[in-house]
Amino acid sequence: MNAPPSKRVIPVILCGGAGTRLWPLSRAASPKQMLDLTGGGSMLALTAERVADRALFAAPVVVAGADQAAAIEAQVPGLGALILEPAPRNTAPAIALAALAADADDVLLVLPSDHLIADVEGVGDAVRRALPLARDGWIVTFGMKAERAETGYGYIERGAALADGVFAAVRFVEKPDAATAQAFVAGGRHDWNAGIFLMRAGTYLEALEAHAPRIFEAVTKGAFTDSPAQSIDYAVMEKAERVAVVPAAIGWSDIGSFEALHLVSEKDGDGNVVAGPGLAIGAHGCLIRSDGPMVAAIGVEDLVIVATKDAVLVVPRAESQRVKEAVEALKARGLDALL
Amino acid sequence: MNAPPSKRVIPVILCGGAGTRLWPLSRAASPKQMLDLTGGGSMLALTAERVADRALFAAPVVVAGADQAAAIEAQVPGLGALILEPAPRNTAPAIALAALAADADDVLLVLPSDHLIADVEGVGDAVRRALPLARDGWIVTFGMKAERAETGYGYIERGAALADGVFAAVRFVEKPDAATAQAFVAGGRHDWNAGIFLMRAGTYLEALEAHAPRIFEAVTKGAFTDSPAQSIDYAVMEKAERVAVVPAAIGWSDIGSFEALHLVSEKDGDGNVVAGPGLAIGAHGCLIRSDGPMVAAIGVEDLVIVATKDAVLVVPRAESQRVKEAVEALKARGLDALL
Repeated sequence: MNAPPSKRVIPVILCGGAGTRLWPLSRAASPKQMLDLTGGGSMLALTAERVADRALFAAPVVVAGADQAAAIEAQVPGLGALILEPAPRNTAPAIALAALAADADDVLLVLPSDHLIADVEGVGDAVRRALPLARDGWIVTFGMKAERAETGYGYIERGAALADGVFAAVRFVEKPDAATAQAFVAGGRHDWNAGIFLMRAGTYLEALEAHAPRIFEAVTKGAFTDSPAQSIDYAVMEKAERVAVVPAAIGWSDIGSFEALHLVSEKDGDGNVVAGPGLAIGAHGCLIRSDGPMVAAIGVEDLVIVATKDAVLVVPRAESQRVKEAVEALKARGLDALL
Repeated sequence: MNAPPSKRVIPVILCGGAGTRLWPLSRAASPKQMLDLTGGGSMLALTAERVADRALFAAPVVVAGADQAAAIEAQVPGLGALILEPAPRNTAPAIALAALAADADDVLLVLPSDHLIADVEGVGDAVRRALPLARDGWIVTFGMKAERAETGYGYIERGAALADGVFAAVRFVEKPDAATAQAFVAGGRHDWNAGIFLMRAGTYLEALEAHAPRIFEAVTKGAFTDSPAQSIDYAVMEKAERVAVVPAAIGWSDIGSFEALHLVSEKDGDGNVVAGPGLAIGAHGCLIRSDGPMVAAIGVEDLVIVATKDAVLVVPRAESQRVKEAVEALKARGLDALL
């Protein structure tokens, strides 16, 4: 039995990001969320599939830049609404646009469009667990098990249990140093912040008004481009009261680097991931990916080799975050067509 | 004062080779001799420039497959003659075609079209030194100083001095094992065989008749394709008497691998060779070459990275001879368009 439409959760898929960490695959014109990184469809299409259960979820709302409109319509069948940001202003103002378009009592599930979640059913279970608190005015985050001392993520500290599998969130820490991250993992009270949130539209706007009045004012006055560019984490989560966290083991990865893509991809007997036309000859532990040219990797170890029709990247897997140095160098040379 | 035309040496440039050691740069349709590997012009054009001194050399004769005719005419200005092989039969029959087209007393300088020689003047000096013996019926080879225990080359053993800087060649050894090559280098009596020969056309045909009668018969009867495919080294040099060697320090390289190309190319402060659109970021000792796509190499060491519009090769420099494994794998998959 479906819930009445007004009671369904409205998925708000944030599709405005650009990002350079997967260059040369990700480009200004085809950002990460539009890429098929796993062979199962674009990250955006997979995100939409995650909220396809119409008993629980209403048709999704996508917030994005205007240049992605056609691609989004093609990749999200049954799109509820497409909200175009006049300019990129990070997540806090983008979510505000969706909240303003909804009724104050509508519950929104905010989702990044460029993450991987292996356990789709787990998403529904976690949302159901979080829903009573969200209806009650809490902002609920979802905590991913911190599997390693990752310094590039945000962490949420769990406090007292509020309900079965739901905890008060007592602190947000963005990108801790290595020692702090290590202590978080060892302590077992911190989860990774996956950027997934459940809350009433009204709750969000009230929190925004209280903690980020400049954003609230710009967005509610129709002056979106005057808004500061701030993440929801910085503008709201780190300051709001009544924030909860639902730990959710749902096979999450942000695929924030080629190293992470290698980690989540299926490997051959030598630990290589070969996607697209490629040959791994006496190669081990490599990520070999081509969108066109034949890639022959011979006798190399633990390398990322990514080829597109106009650019090739070769970098040790463990240094794959250095991709941004190539992007910066191309930018400095004015080679914008490659970005 | 120029020598009378009849007395000039006729360069015979052998342009029939295919080869796979520089894949994906070298292809069936654009073999190594047609590539600009050094930034100075194609290997063929550089070969023709080596014999451009019209006081010493007549216009060059090129022997090649029919599919290369247009490219050869474009790259060899002042071409004396283009002799097309009906089918590839290695060097001994190819040289016979040129010898038959000449007068018996004409002196031929046989040259591979895909080697590098840095000292062009040294070529003329060596030929002048060799010329009296060639006119006298000797086959004169040119010995390149054996700089390392290379097992992929042929070696010529020097015997008694016949004239100033000219020695009897007492033995040819093709591709010795490592211990033998090491002994050759240590002994100092062996030179590398660069495949460059000076001899009267008649001398060559007589030697061919004596030592490789099946080739002689096929070629002289106009049945070229019936000829065995044999190199001049195997068919003639290893068996002929009156063979001389002129040691010549002329900066020779056969550029038989990407390792060899790296060796002869100009490097940046980190030992990288970057040819074409490429970025070396924290990379050391790499050969980065692109005929199209931007190549970004980050944090890698001693790699060969070669990109063309339809293929990319990544292999450690020291293993660059393994390129043939990629070629074999592509052949096995029927991907002939990439070969």
